[in-house]
Amino acid sequence: MNSFGNIFRITLYGESHGKEIGVVVDGCPAGIPLSENDMLTDIERRKTGGYATSTRTESDIPEIRSGIYQGHTTGAPILVAFHNEDFNDEDYNFDGFFRPGHADYAAYKKYNGYNNPLGGGQFSGRMTLPLVAAGCIAKKLIPSIDISAQILPECMANVEKALENNDSAGGIVECRIRNLEAGIGEPLFDSLESLISHAIFSIPGVKAIEFGNGIASASMLGSEYNDCIVSSDGKTATNNCGGINGGISNGNEIVFRTYYHPTPSIAKKQKTFNFNSLKVEDLEIHGRHDTCFALRTPVIVEALVAIVLADLTLISKATRL
Amino acid sequence: MNSFGNIFRITLYGESHGKEIGVVVDGCPAGIPLSENDMLTDIERRKTGGYATSTRTESDIPEIRSGIYQGHTTGAPILVAFHNEDFNDEDYNFDGFFRPGHADYAAYKKYNGYNNPLGGGQFSGRMTLPLVAAGCIAKKLIPSIDISAQILPECMANVEKALENNDSAGGIVECRIRNLEAGIGEPLFDSLESLISHAIFSIPGVKAIEFGNGIASASMLGSEYNDCIVSSDGKTATNNCGGINGGISNGNEIVFRTYYHPTPSIAKKQKTFNFNSLKVEDLEIHGRHDTCFALRTPVIVEALVAIVLADLTLISKATRL
Amino acid sequence: MNSFGNIFRITLYGESHGKEIGVVVDGCPAGIPLSENDMLTDIERRKTGGYATSTRTESDIPEIRSGIYQGHTTGAPILVAFHNEDFNDEDYNFDGFFRPGHADYAAYKKYNGYNNPLGGGQFSGRMTLPLVAAGCIAKKLIPSIDISAQILPECMANVEKALENNDSAGGIVECRIRNLEAGIGEPLFDSLESLISHAIFSIPGVKAIEFGNGIASASMLGSEYNDCIVSSDGKTATNNCGGINGGISNGNEIVFRTYYHPTPSIAKKQKTFNFNSLKVEDLEIHGRHDTCFALRTPVIVEALVAIVLADLTLISKATRL
Amino acid sequence: MNSFGNIFRITLYGESHGKEIGVVVDGCPAGIPLSENDMLTDIERRKTGGYATSTRTESDIPEIRSGIYQGHTTGAPILVAFHNEDFNDEDYNFDGFFRPGHADYAAYKKYNGYNNPLGGGQFSGRMTLPLVAAGCIAKKLIPSIDISAQILPECMANVEKALENNDSAGGIVECRIRNLEAGIGEPLFDSLESLISHAIFSIPGVKAIEFGNGIASASMLGSEYNDCIVSSDGKTATNNCGGINGGISNGNEIVFRTYYHPTPSIAKKQKTFNFNSLKVEDLEIHGRHDTCFALRTPVIVEALVAIVLADLTLISKATRL
Repeated sequence: MNSFGNIFRITLYGESHGKEIGVVVDGCPAGIPLSENDMLTDIERRKTGGYATSTRTESDIPEIRSGIYQGHTTGAPILVAFHNEDFNDEDYNFDGFFRPGHADYAAYKKYNGYNNPLGGGQFSGRMTLPLVAAGCIAKKLIPSIDISAQILPECMANVEKALENNDSAGGIVECRIRNLEAGIGEPLFDSLESLISHAIFSIPGVKAIEFGNGIASASMLGSEYNDCIVSSDGKTATNNCGGINGGISNGNEIVFRTYYHPTPSIAKKQKTFNFNSLKVEDLEIHGRHDTCFALRTPVIVEALVAIVLADLTLISKATRL
Repeated sequence: MNSFGNIFRITLYGESHGKEIGVVVDGCPAGIPLSENDMLTDIERRKTGGYATSTRTESDIPEIRSGIYQGHTTGAPILVAFHNEDFNDEDYNFDGFFRPGHADYAAYKKYNGYNNPLGGGQFSGRMTLPLVAAGCIAKKLIPSIDISAQILPECMANVEKALENNDSAGGIVECRIRNLEAGIGEPLFDSLESLISHAIFSIPGVKAIEFGNGIASASMLGSEYNDCIVSSDGKTATNNCGGINGGISNGNEIVFRTYYHPTPSIAKKQKTFNFNSLKVEDLEIHGRHDTCFALRTPVIVEALVAIVLADLTLISKATRL
Repeated sequence: MNSFGNIFRITLYGESHGKEIGVVVDGCPAGIPLSENDMLTDIERRKTGGYATSTRTESDIPEIRSGIYQGHTTGAPILVAFHNEDFNDEDYNFDGFFRPGHADYAAYKKYNGYNNPLGGGQFSGRMTLPLVAAGCIAKKLIPSIDISAQILPECMANVEKALENNDSAGGIVECRIRNLEAGIGEPLFDSLESLISHAIFSIPGVKAIEFGNGIASASMLGSEYNDCIVSSDGKTATNNCGGINGGISNGNEIVFRTYYHPTPSIAKKQKTFNFNSLKVEDLEIHGRHDTCFALRTPVIVEALVAIVLADLTLISKATRL
Repeated sequence: MNSFGNIFRITLYGESHGKEIGVVVDGCPAGIPLSENDMLTDIERRKTGGYATSTRTESDIPEIRSGIYQGHTTGAPILVAFHNEDFNDEDYNFDGFFRPGHADYAAYKKYNGYNNPLGGGQFSGRMTLPLVAAGCIAKKLIPSIDISAQILPECMANVEKALENNDSAGGIVECRIRNLEAGIGEPLFDSLESLISHAIFSIPGVKAIEFGNGIASASMLGSEYNDCIVSSDGKTATNNCGGINGGISNGNEIVFRTYYHPTPSIAKKQKTFNFNSLKVEDLEIHGRHDTCFALRTPVIVEALVAIVLADLTLISKATRL
């Protein structure tokens, strides 16, 4: 349940306030130069402390503990771990409230109350840190593919409004993939859209995804939507399909957008049920939270795309004569 | 690659114009009453011949060829097969054109030209027929859960326009799931959103999915978005999250919407590249096609949801003390 | 549960006395010439009717129903099916007895009595027929590897004795694999021994397996056992390890032996518990049974080895730079 | 490739001389009391330092770094790690020799020379330490099943001989499983024999396995081999099949034997190929090695059996109505 991928396969572990969090990366070919340094830029991009993000300061230093020898991958599983440092358990005592918008209640029901509730446990956005590390390894396997994600500028007005009002904001992250050859992905269950969406929805807070002009396409006519090929390399005049037909890359740019709900933890009072008093009461949430966590996610989106494409590329290599 | 699910696992086979198409359903408990009759209503809902759908008439008679004995499941894999009957191979000769909006070009590149191109081969919407059959079996495992999907009425104006103009239309299908207990789904990779989207994007033509008010939520403030609990059974005042927090059901109604692009095959002339003449030329597509294939998909959405929930329910049963 | 393999993956279905039995073969590269004719020789080798085998005569005609177009694999799943013809359900009425040596009792407990008991249902040796078909496809992927299995001649005296006494006999099948390059297999869980034994024990009646001089090696000293390399191509002076070190092929011949128990169905009277009378009673088993089913299994062993090696070869191709 | 199991799934990482080794255990239900103390007895049983075992002394202290909260499992993945301490890299410089009987040569070929060769890297017997830890968790899930393994006494004469001659010895470990209900295991690919052998062959040095009287059964007649039921609880008069029919437990004691080759590292001179000089030369292996590593493996066998049975028990719970 905490593994993803077929050949290039990652397994996550850890909780927000546990000793450490990390990832085991399996199926990585031997002989690839790799060190922790390869991960620092992406890890930095995910960090807190920037505009409209939390002030929880974690050093986020990756430690590779297996699978590397003399600066290269060995073919054995690669463990990358991160110590948890800057947390204060007193922020998170249970007081009858399951926080609105969080997984608290659902997790309590699922695990009969045995889940680790501190900082959201394994539901925490902190779990995306090892994903970024795994993404750095994946990117090494597909060096010619260019993956680039960013938050759409039109979201910033809402972020500004949230900052002014002690509130929080959602956001939209757009990802573009260039230089992906035609023919990657599988029909039906392992379509590019299936695998990318599967991966992307594992980012806490994602509630929608569209490929190409996916949402608008539902209101289009076929004559408007179809992307007609204009040259022998498969380039199309338009790209409504976002570079994917029948679940397979068609050689044009892949484009998709990821929609995030606002950070659920807000400083404003909320009226919600107290399971001790059995009444709806005022709840105030303290602590250090991102006003807009979506701002920190472009690098996570890229990581997950890289993980999907690394796996599909290995499979393609295996199954093409 | 053509299998989906962990314990309740389905494997698809077949092509649009091959001898037959079908599905192997594995992991189904023994002792469940089951016959082909249990599938007829759902199969009928998917059929062509209604408003704005194709006139290709297939009898679509399911044949269970294994896994049933004396009217009950045996615990062995269940094969459900459908003969292909009403197809005319002459409709699909290659003439230098890869049809716009179809998987033709991407598949050609993926399979080095060895894919079966007739009727779209395994990329055909016909492959959703065995999915519906598998869904009927899945529904038997989760009888108390109510899954209901339909196309949004606001899409019909566009369908009407398409019909009038020899064009095609997209659509939006909304699915609601009631009586799903809290605690189903897994954090991170096997979140409800991850698994449902993975399944749903295997339906040819889906280009976007949103859970709850997922798209709108990206423009909301946290104080607007958060669903506050109002009673001890976890019911919430609003349902912006679509019944899912942290990837886990919270006991409220699950709501998601699936966005389809228009049917790519249209009677109108299209200008696209001819790989024989190496020029952009006019293409006219003949044959019998759905004006709006999305109209046929609500039952397919329900089937895939049932398949996901059957599997998650079995896993939940296994992993709860 | 009825699937095996990672990329080259097979899924079995069917029961001894059901309508048909078959296999879905997924992950096969596109562009490989394939037809039913490629399977006939191996299917013939598995047939009944020879020395000390059953007289149940099945035509065993393979039908490929998907995944082939114009004589080549398409990359889509390949279904190979076989009709069941020559069975007589009256041979198998339940009368209070679970047949000794068969899965009858264990299956009854597992499936709460809902399993198909006719001819052993999915526990029947007949399920190995689609395995042979899948093996023929696998062999196409690894044409340079030579896999050859046969029953050891020293077993024949016991078979002769069984024939003379209306009894049945076990046997030992030895398999040799030549021209497998060094470096195939994975350390630990997916060692060559792990995967081959996993596959081989799915043949009904196998109760032991040894690689190289595995059984004898337990009584050896290290100085006797170690296979020392004698040339730069890795050839060893002895081959006690059967061509496998640390789960990986070392370039020498792979050798393993499979041990079968005798056919459980014998004409002789047996004293066993009757669950109707609740007493131990005499049981006489009628019908047409192999005196020594092991005689029919060398081709099945070869098929399973081919399936394992096809998958490992694809994985090796994927994960070597 | 380094994962095993379907629902209760373990993922190994680490190398003999790396920073640490460990295992991620996924699929463990929430609410089970668990601490490192639960692992100490089994870890002690595996340790070196006893009769005919190595003098490498590792403290082998397990650290649970995730998945536990307030003394209970949380349902999240459990990481158990062990620091590597007592190793001396100078023992293992490459000098043109691939050690006889070791994976050195096969691994070199597989990984193009990039594998970590120190102490055998991930091929080391040290990797069985986290398996023992995972086995302790598995045993918690199946408290009523009694799993007990030991080395057969008749092996000890050979061990004695090896000790006297600076040589090494193999061994046979017998495992008995009591109180396993009838009906566990799956027909065909996931038979009890398939899964147990798959797991057992991941122990470095195992070269054969037999269930019940598996080896002898190949020379038996059916009338001698068949285990006849004698009472309504399924107990049989004999147990030649080792408690498994058709891959499924029949409620009798499960018995199997595992055959180990001798420790490949011996103090005696060996004549083997030197890849620097390109000649066969004398090789002397120094270091601290087990005379008979099989003596340390009974607890590993038990661990792997527990892992298999925990997974099958969860699956059985999921798929029985």
